Amino acid sequence: MRARGAAQGRVGRTHRLDEAAQRDFKYTLGPYADPVLEVAPGDRIVVETLDAFGGRIRLESDRPSEILEMPFGNPQNGPIRVEGAKKGDVLAIYIERIVPRGDQPRGTTCLINELGGLVGTDVTAMLNDPLPEKVRKVVVDENWVYWSDRLRLPYEPFIGTIGLSPQIDSISSLVPASHGGNMDLPETRPGNVIYLPVRAEGAYLFLGDVHATQGDGELSGNAIEHPSETTIVVDLIRDWQINWPRIESEDRIMSVGSARPMEDAARIAYRDLVEWMADEFGHDRLEAYMLLSQCGRVRLGNMVDPNYTLSAGIEKQHLFGNV
Amino acid sequence: MRARGAAQGRVGRTHRLDEAAQRDFKYTLGPYADPVLEVAPGDRIVVETLDAFGGRIRLESDRPSEILEMPFGNPQNGPIRVEGAKKGDVLAIYIERIVPRGDQPRGTTCLINELGGLVGTDVTAMLNDPLPEKVRKVVVDENWVYWSDRLRLPYEPFIGTIGLSPQIDSISSLVPASHGGNMDLPETRPGNVIYLPVRAEGAYLFLGDVHATQGDGELSGNAIEHPSETTIVVDLIRDWQINWPRIESEDRIMSVGSARPMEDAARIAYRDLVEWMADEFGHDRLEAYMLLSQCGRVRLGNMVDPNYTLSAGIEKQHLFGNV
Amino acid sequence: MRARGAAQGRVGRTHRLDEAAQRDFKYTLGPYADPVLEVAPGDRIVVETLDAFGGRIRLESDRPSEILEMPFGNPQNGPIRVEGAKKGDVLAIYIERIVPRGDQPRGTTCLINELGGLVGTDVTAMLNDPLPEKVRKVVVDENWVYWSDRLRLPYEPFIGTIGLSPQIDSISSLVPASHGGNMDLPETRPGNVIYLPVRAEGAYLFLGDVHATQGDGELSGNAIEHPSETTIVVDLIRDWQINWPRIESEDRIMSVGSARPMEDAARIAYRDLVEWMADEFGHDRLEAYMLLSQCGRVRLGNMVDPNYTLSAGIEKQHLFGNV
Amino acid sequence: MRARGAAQGRVGRTHRLDEAAQRDFKYTLGPYADPVLEVAPGDRIVVETLDAFGGRIRLESDRPSEILEMPFGNPQNGPIRVEGAKKGDVLAIYIERIVPRGDQPRGTTCLINELGGLVGTDVTAMLNDPLPEKVRKVVVDENWVYWSDRLRLPYEPFIGTIGLSPQIDSISSLVPASHGGNMDLPETRPGNVIYLPVRAEGAYLFLGDVHATQGDGELSGNAIEHPSETTIVVDLIRDWQINWPRIESEDRIMSVGSARPMEDAARIAYRDLVEWMADEFGHDRLEAYMLLSQCGRVRLGNMVDPNYTLSAGIEKQHLFGNV
Repeated sequence: MRARGAAQGRVGRTHRLDEAAQRDFKYTLGPYADPVLEVAPGDRIVVETLDAFGGRIRLESDRPSEILEMPFGNPQNGPIRVEGAKKGDVLAIYIERIVPRGDQPRGTTCLINELGGLVGTDVTAMLNDPLPEKVRKVVVDENWVYWSDRLRLPYEPFIGTIGLSPQIDSISSLVPASHGGNMDLPETRPGNVIYLPVRAEGAYLFLGDVHATQGDGELSGNAIEHPSETTIVVDLIRDWQINWPRIESEDRIMSVGSARPMEDAARIAYRDLVEWMADEFGHDRLEAYMLLSQCGRVRLGNMVDPNYTLSAGIEKQHLFGNV
Repeated sequence: MRARGAAQGRVGRTHRLDEAAQRDFKYTLGPYADPVLEVAPGDRIVVETLDAFGGRIRLESDRPSEILEMPFGNPQNGPIRVEGAKKGDVLAIYIERIVPRGDQPRGTTCLINELGGLVGTDVTAMLNDPLPEKVRKVVVDENWVYWSDRLRLPYEPFIGTIGLSPQIDSISSLVPASHGGNMDLPETRPGNVIYLPVRAEGAYLFLGDVHATQGDGELSGNAIEHPSETTIVVDLIRDWQINWPRIESEDRIMSVGSARPMEDAARIAYRDLVEWMADEFGHDRLEAYMLLSQCGRVRLGNMVDPNYTLSAGIEKQHLFGNV
Repeated sequence: MRARGAAQGRVGRTHRLDEAAQRDFKYTLGPYADPVLEVAPGDRIVVETLDAFGGRIRLESDRPSEILEMPFGNPQNGPIRVEGAKKGDVLAIYIERIVPRGDQPRGTTCLINELGGLVGTDVTAMLNDPLPEKVRKVVVDENWVYWSDRLRLPYEPFIGTIGLSPQIDSISSLVPASHGGNMDLPETRPGNVIYLPVRAEGAYLFLGDVHATQGDGELSGNAIEHPSETTIVVDLIRDWQINWPRIESEDRIMSVGSARPMEDAARIAYRDLVEWMADEFGHDRLEAYMLLSQCGRVRLGNMVDPNYTLSAGIEKQHLFGNV
Repeated sequence: MRARGAAQGRVGRTHRLDEAAQRDFKYTLGPYADPVLEVAPGDRIVVETLDAFGGRIRLESDRPSEILEMPFGNPQNGPIRVEGAKKGDVLAIYIERIVPRGDQPRGTTCLINELGGLVGTDVTAMLNDPLPEKVRKVVVDENWVYWSDRLRLPYEPFIGTIGLSPQIDSISSLVPASHGGNMDLPETRPGNVIYLPVRAEGAYLFLGDVHATQGDGELSGNAIEHPSETTIVVDLIRDWQINWPRIESEDRIMSVGSARPMEDAARIAYRDLVEWMADEFGHDRLEAYMLLSQCGRVRLGNMVDPNYTLSAGIEKQHLFGNV
């Protein structure tokens, strides 16, 4: 049972947003670019995403610092205009399927100067010398990420960056915030629904940055980045006031916070969850607060982006009762 | 002596950007709006700024939550296009003069829900009840801010928000970051020069949010906000790679950092200052680092905006030697 | 297989540290109190712990602010002196069994002024009014925590506070740090081994604060606090230089960090894990760093104590390879 | 006029706590060591302090990592027992005079691994290589710190570490917290009074770590450390409930906060100042909050210790009115 039931009923038209149709990938999420696609609530969209490096890192001998040119990182598909969406609505995006695409080795991860959880960065500014740059190319198929001769990791793909246009700002695709964006949250995976607040007329959905697998925190700054074919179904929910992204899986609801320091991301997510429990499921706010102290679950998305992202969730059996 | 000597030589044309010429005040700093004025390097601009509330808070009985409508806070003049400015240049802005304007009591400060250094906010999310809203209107003239029957504070005006367009993002006028923006730094005051990195063709300068006086940190979220007539002279410096705003006074150079947590703002500012000392004044980096441990000076701008801002500076006598 | 094999071989003597033997519970972890028990490496100890309130909150109508008197919070059993332990050793503590004890309803959780993840505190100092105080008493047995008529949560007990004496400091039992302490980490549960650095002669082990269950972050400041009978087996590992607590389960190794802001706790834990992987399991440091970016797992202990605590771990199959 | 008038009336006996009388310098502040001196309220004490390295760094070719042995850093004089002091009192310490002592070059500063505001540390844990170690020895007299051939800095000495014993903890002399400790705050200088909350019977005063001069933040981890002869006068104030250190100068009152992240230090200091203004000077709390937004002043002590320290103050003319 879905709490909201959106984006999972009868599916409308199926659109294909392939690389050719996208043409110009986007590097900010905002209301200023023209839509590349217009869809109706209920429609399915099959999206060809690029990897976070725009496919430009091809060899383990490549040097990211020579190839990548900021602010053109993390290319996004979109904006996708959703008919009838207006400020105050919520866009529900059901993630139906993610498969890898492109030539092998199609997976890429790397160490980039001033990016990563255990190095000085442009804001956690240090005088220490940077780590050496480093590129790893790995084979990825629909079952496994082949990390090394001795180790393979399950293919557990998710959308690293997904968000809607702010009302008037245009936010770098590298940034996660209340509009969604570069959250790097493994829960934005097939089978789940993400709810995003609509702030601009037409919603203007952007997505990209699909990860083949990722550890909590995306520690060294990159996951297994890879080009994908990602299928979503979008739907509109009217009259639902939400301020931050929310995610729903088969057995759990989750609120998402993105901020620095990391405790503020946790505060955002948990307060939003308390309010969600109170407003829609009839919990008393203080009782919900105390209950989450017993059974809330936190998942760290990233500890490397301009904001850190995590989700705070509760199992539906705890939300609705199990006795 | 100015380290850079910019924006203080022979002044070119004088332009007037009054309310009528500005017409639509701006709420994001980006490359997407058309310039309201075009100037040449060396030109003077007399700007009529609104207060941070767009003049909409008129009475002490007003309720900010009913009057202010986000994201339309902190209206900015601009964009002002600077002829010939291109990515990689630096725009030097000499602040020549600030005087108050408008009907008395023309100064406004207030308590706004979820804004302030000692209250829960949208990101430092709390369950506690908010403080009551509160508005203070105060008389401001060119000498004093008349706080109460018993207390007046010197009129020490400065520009709360000043910044250039990012290359592709468009950033809310409420946010301070590497482009400048809502820094609330008392050092952006008459007599000083602020250096900002040009990232978009034409620089696209925005400014507003002039404060009649302000405490360190802008503790309750607002200073004495007031409409002003602000006079600046702009100049271009070619081939100077800076990443964050820098400020120069008669006797001091200062680097500016904006980030959360606050220590990252301090790290940004101090590292930039180390690099400035090394690159332009011949100091050894580690010697500069150790010297600042003995005579660096920090000024806290705000502890209430989406990023906190502070400056780290050194006296020129310590920079150049005094023996 | 245990990476270290400690504390799980032939067990020595069994000691009982019941309430009477403990007599004076301790509120700081340090070298200044006399041991209440002396054991040899390999010995088993059955410990009667009090709940975090020293059993003083008995009724839902109790007011914590009238009952609790700081700094006497979170009473600890100990110090337990371990024969032969000296600075530079590691104490391995295998957690064998935890069962609840005491009269029903033996579980307690409550809202305390200036404690909790979504309220202002003594350090995240706010002017907002505090939330109302609130006490919940719940029945706890070896299977369930009976939260309400509609909801029961599995009994998943763990040791909330466990640590060794620092060399010369004496640290409040409310604080988690590199000596262990009030980590509130669900991974210190039956079946797991915790490794702690010995800093004082005799190790001086303290423990208490057993939780019947807890959500990630211990959001409202308290878990289901309850008196327990906790059985541990202690062992010594010589010549193992560790700086922070480490935990080992059947299928995972985990490093623990406690700090503010929360990202520093994550940095501590993840850096320690990188070093553990490099020093003991032959991984290249940078390769380990990149691998954890793909499969590291973070568990948030608390976001409410003087330091925040989390663990960062890796599955043994990923550590040793699975192909 | 002093708000509290303490520690500045008729002075009682003068005691001398020289190196010989101190004998064992202390590395934690707590109630467990025997007093080295007993004084009465009103007494003067002339204290011979060591530098923060215990005088062990003698040459610029010394390597701190080979010489310094943690946790034995920052040696303190004390504990000094104050007759009649009991929990709930406040100890007022008037700093009368500081002069340098010892052989030239008697000033020392250095770069130490994992210490400093622009390097990774044990808690802001990084994988980057450390900076090189570096020692600077400088001549210090009662007028100047002779930094280099071209630069001398004024001798502006202050007490880097001063604090009272906690009730039951014993806190490392490297740590600043609510008991005082390693605050590195230039306002603890001759002419000022520092107020500290008494928590243990006899107060147990510790001090040391005198700096010849220091920049805001003590950026590289050390100021100009030097041995000193420091003269203080102590007094008791009964029935004054304070939770954090407070400082009073001729023209200003200041509250002190020590915490991480830095914004929490600012919140602590500013909230305490609001409460001080309300409780003792008759200000309305919300009016005080708004007034500090116009004229509060922050001074950053350190951004390098286990907690960061800063003060928030207000001029007495603004406190009492100036019209």
